[in-house]
Amino acid sequence: MEKLSLKRLENVDLKKVVINDSFWSKRQKLIKETVIPYQWAALNDAIPGAEPSHTIENFRIAAGESNEEYYGMVFQDSDLAKWLETVGHSLAIERDDELERIADKAIDLIGRAQLSDGYLNTYFTVAHPDKKWTNLRDDHELYCAGHLIEAAVAYYEATGKQKIIDIVCKLVDHIDSVLGPETGKKRGYPGHPEIELALMKLYKVTGNKQHLNLCKFFIEERGAQPPHYYDIEAKLREEKHKNKKDLFHSKDYSQAHLPVREQKTAEGHSVRALYLYSGMVDLATELQDESLIEACRQLWKNVTRQRMYITGGIGSSQYRESFTVDYDLPNDRAYTETCASIALVFWADRMLQIEEDSEYADVIERALYNGILSGMSLDGKSYFYVNPLEVWPSTVDHRNDMESVQYKRQSWFGCACCPPNLSRLVASLGRYIYSHHDSNKEIFIHQYIGGNTTVELDGNNVGITQKTEYPWDEKINVQIEIEHEMEFTVALRLPSWCKNPRIKVNDEIIDVSSISKKGYAKITRKWKNDDRIELVLPMPVEMVRANPNVRENIGKVALQRGPIVYCIEEADNGENLKSISLATNSALSVAYEKDLLEGVTVITGEGLRIKEIESDQLYFTGEIEMVRSEVKAIPYFSWSNRKPGEMSVWIREE
Amino acid sequence: MEKLSLKRLENVDLKKVVINDSFWSKRQKLIKETVIPYQWAALNDAIPGAEPSHTIENFRIAAGESNEEYYGMVFQDSDLAKWLETVGHSLAIERDDELERIADKAIDLIGRAQLSDGYLNTYFTVAHPDKKWTNLRDDHELYCAGHLIEAAVAYYEATGKQKIIDIVCKLVDHIDSVLGPETGKKRGYPGHPEIELALMKLYKVTGNKQHLNLCKFFIEERGAQPPHYYDIEAKLREEKHKNKKDLFHSKDYSQAHLPVREQKTAEGHSVRALYLYSGMVDLATELQDESLIEACRQLWKNVTRQRMYITGGIGSSQYRESFTVDYDLPNDRAYTETCASIALVFWADRMLQIEEDSEYADVIERALYNGILSGMSLDGKSYFYVNPLEVWPSTVDHRNDMESVQYKRQSWFGCACCPPNLSRLVASLGRYIYSHHDSNKEIFIHQYIGGNTTVELDGNNVGITQKTEYPWDEKINVQIEIEHEMEFTVALRLPSWCKNPRIKVNDEIIDVSSISKKGYAKITRKWKNDDRIELVLPMPVEMVRANPNVRENIGKVALQRGPIVYCIEEADNGENLKSISLATNSALSVAYEKDLLEGVTVITGEGLRIKEIESDQLYFTGEIEMVRSEVKAIPYFSWSNRKPGEMSVWIREE
Repeated sequence: MEKLSLKRLENVDLKKVVINDSFWSKRQKLIKETVIPYQWAALNDAIPGAEPSHTIENFRIAAGESNEEYYGMVFQDSDLAKWLETVGHSLAIERDDELERIADKAIDLIGRAQLSDGYLNTYFTVAHPDKKWTNLRDDHELYCAGHLIEAAVAYYEATGKQKIIDIVCKLVDHIDSVLGPETGKKRGYPGHPEIELALMKLYKVTGNKQHLNLCKFFIEERGAQPPHYYDIEAKLREEKHKNKKDLFHSKDYSQAHLPVREQKTAEGHSVRALYLYSGMVDLATELQDESLIEACRQLWKNVTRQRMYITGGIGSSQYRESFTVDYDLPNDRAYTETCASIALVFWADRMLQIEEDSEYADVIERALYNGILSGMSLDGKSYFYVNPLEVWPSTVDHRNDMESVQYKRQSWFGCACCPPNLSRLVASLGRYIYSHHDSNKEIFIHQYIGGNTTVELDGNNVGITQKTEYPWDEKINVQIEIEHEMEFTVALRLPSWCKNPRIKVNDEIIDVSSISKKGYAKITRKWKNDDRIELVLPMPVEMVRANPNVRENIGKVALQRGPIVYCIEEADNGENLKSISLATNSALSVAYEKDLLEGVTVITGEGLRIKEIESDQLYFTGEIEMVRSEVKAIPYFSWSNRKPGEMSVWIREE
Repeated sequence: MEKLSLKRLENVDLKKVVINDSFWSKRQKLIKETVIPYQWAALNDAIPGAEPSHTIENFRIAAGESNEEYYGMVFQDSDLAKWLETVGHSLAIERDDELERIADKAIDLIGRAQLSDGYLNTYFTVAHPDKKWTNLRDDHELYCAGHLIEAAVAYYEATGKQKIIDIVCKLVDHIDSVLGPETGKKRGYPGHPEIELALMKLYKVTGNKQHLNLCKFFIEERGAQPPHYYDIEAKLREEKHKNKKDLFHSKDYSQAHLPVREQKTAEGHSVRALYLYSGMVDLATELQDESLIEACRQLWKNVTRQRMYITGGIGSSQYRESFTVDYDLPNDRAYTETCASIALVFWADRMLQIEEDSEYADVIERALYNGILSGMSLDGKSYFYVNPLEVWPSTVDHRNDMESVQYKRQSWFGCACCPPNLSRLVASLGRYIYSHHDSNKEIFIHQYIGGNTTVELDGNNVGITQKTEYPWDEKINVQIEIEHEMEFTVALRLPSWCKNPRIKVNDEIIDVSSISKKGYAKITRKWKNDDRIELVLPMPVEMVRANPNVRENIGKVALQRGPIVYCIEEADNGENLKSISLATNSALSVAYEKDLLEGVTVITGEGLRIKEIESDQLYFTGEIEMVRSEVKAIPYFSWSNRKPGEMSVWIREE
């Protein structure tokens, strides 16, 4: 019996998933051993030379334990919340007394910074106590609350400790007393969506309908007009007329231009947009709201068919950190904030839970191995906020229209949203690997990452162990552990990049096409202990082309092998990467180089390169001469870990 | 005997040149009959819907004849000066009582706005009388003075009327009393060069060494340090520390980062740069200063070999309206201000006078027929400030990094520098056609424009008549009128775009290569009355390629025929112009279409176009299919005179 028609899959709890492989384990270790302590030091302003954070200090001031002045962005509090969420995920993987002690103290501090009425936001408590809830459009109070709620749920789920849940419940009580549809409350909703999905997480822990209803109010009220809530509050603030070019205050910047069901294209700030869409899926699933999920499907199509880079990057404009128009995907001025690709994973994961289509897991994979991982250096100590697909340092340094582009990762940012967002994702990676559909007795493997899990199916524990050198190697071995023989389905994602997947069960060849459904090979049988599945996903180097409406990429190819998008870098190929081209039939070979970039598979092949001309003329009618030239491509995520230089994902096709 | 080794050629006086052809005459008529009255109305705020100018009103306030408040940019006065200069050139071509009466009244008003000490700048007189000469870096007082001096010389040369010369001499006296190397004076020089070349023009009229010496001071003092003059005056103004990203106040923005002889690359604001270089040539020529001219040669090479668009556009960055780095020439974000290409003509003309190399006249031609003419609509009523080489309207409308790009010409601009600059150039076009070298008995024809002139050579009047349908037709007929048979040289420019020029004199074929020197065919003979030269410059359509260091243009060609650079426009070729490509051997044909865009020669041929794909996938591994497709190109200068749409100069080469 299927109770919820919109809910099909349930992700396996993070605590039940062990990651143990050569690719991700070291990154999770990096998060735990390097990034969490580094970020904690940053929050405490203990990193010499880094931009100040002042986050902990702000909480101390709010708690009455410091006399300093508030410093930082209006959303500075969220840095602590994101750190705490990462800690929660990390503790879910493995408890750690020392870390828990630090986190508990931080939670105590948060508690002391909370006002007696439940209000909790150090910016307003300390710097502008008279301006609480007067500017929902810009002021991030609900955004910070959302991140704190997410942290609370993660920490509670990992440790069972109730205190931070109590703090955020009290905060939500307060929010609910101020905002809502009832007479006497403000009908406001956040300029930066985030609390919607957080409230849905909290609701799952508390079962308190208040949490569900508040989320519903924020989503349903969004974009209602006339009058528009942002205009009402702006008038009350006596806000001056803005420059008409100041699109920051246009409603679409924060997806408040229309009621959510009427939004057909992804507009405005890309992180805001995808946090909102994620919350919409959660709410739609809970309320079985088909019209709301249909809006999400339409937005999904728009983002992934018209507005997404091959790296899973989204938001092609630095100005407003926003989407622009269909197919406007410049490579050298891609904004493609790391956080936006992370938000894409959140959204895709939620869509996958209700749609059971590998397309969503494919996008998770695309973002994860490319546009997200590029945000962090191999040593975990420096970060990209912006992830362009093409960089010429000399131009970047001299063109103001590229001011957001960096070609060296930075140690921290004044607005430090991406580094902690990246670490919370990597720490919680386990939750994106498996899910199950109990009534159908299905276990899904979405991502091929070595390790194991246990899924309870029909009252029995099913152990799943993956062994693989993915993403470098095409082979994935899955082993089943089970006490009693039992019939159920193992659904293996068949990535869209793979043209000829092969499957054997206990050395018996399976006809993949006959068992494929929406991108999953569904192997239904009576499984017994130690049954083995061998999945082979052949990974030839593919030349990928973009839809010709993406004008920037016409006449170009990108190299992809398996889930990994490649780029060419100056360190391997010399200057003027644009002078390099590949023939449609170029022979390309791959090799794993264990000493390069901490071990990556590289692609090499014979390309062409424009011969330098002898004339000093800028323009001439002679033909351009080409010479054969070795081309070497490295995984995009690993660029800018050597000497700064040019980089390009897209290569001219000759 | 050659008195001045650095001065070789002398341009023929504007009054002696008649333009009478089917291409330029109508444009000069447009300037006289439409643009001058339109601009006069604009200066008087008499154009409904146009942005306010307030220029005349500002002069009236300064003269004590109005009680309004100053409105406009700090350099608003220069709009009147540029208009007056245009009027001067127009009157040099043909006197006009009514126009002269209006101009005389404007001059009277200017005179009344001048203070008794000679000071003349309405912005400071009216709005900030206490701030005169306190911010030479930013405040344009010398820039406005320069334009007024240029206007004065033009008006005086056309009419012989002295009044405006007296006004500007009094102004220069005042400037000379404030600025200069002598003790007690400020050692300042203009942030926006312009007065240097103007003073050299004035010096030629007045013979007053004061004018020469002031120019010399401004050029020699430029960039001297430490301390730098701009720092001295900033300190006196108690200027606050600027944002380190505020490059407007960096010294290279106004070419004051180094003494002029040490400037090896063209930096900063492109119009400022080229006005400075023009003044440098004038001064070097007058003073026979070889090291100064050598600096100009080096800068010329940098601009024309590394930093110039195929249209003669310069200044590739909207931010600071500036040069960036070598070969950074993006097409869609080209700034290429109309004024900068005009300045390129000024500079090239001066270089030509001392270097006698067709390269300079070639650049004049390139700028004139392409990047300059594109600045004005065919009806003369709307203007481009910025002249990009590629435009996609939907993207332009949604990307902030393209905010300066327009795809529809505007009726006027708040900062209205380009329209009057364009009209003064077209009105004075006659001066760029011919020059003479008296001691060598040479008459040069630099530009092929129908009409006639009279050159005094060795005491004899030599009449030269050109008949041609240039730039559409390859044939130029030159006829000599002379009273007595006489030996001299007619030097005809052989444009670099022309591979096989042919010359006949009185039907006798001349071996062009044997008489060619630095791009000129020098025909030396005893000329008699009615001698005829037939010059044929074959104009096949050429596929032009850019130096591969111009990464934006790798794999692309531009179409050029004769001096005209072509573009493809959406009106002729449909949407997504980037999907169009040309084969290296595409057969291209030309036809004059008299009803299209007021009569232009178009290029048509068979190209390829990417077939729209059926899949809705953004990225795929299938090949791209091409279909044959007619391509039609129009002259770049004539784009955006129909329905707004896409445009591209560079086309992919398949």
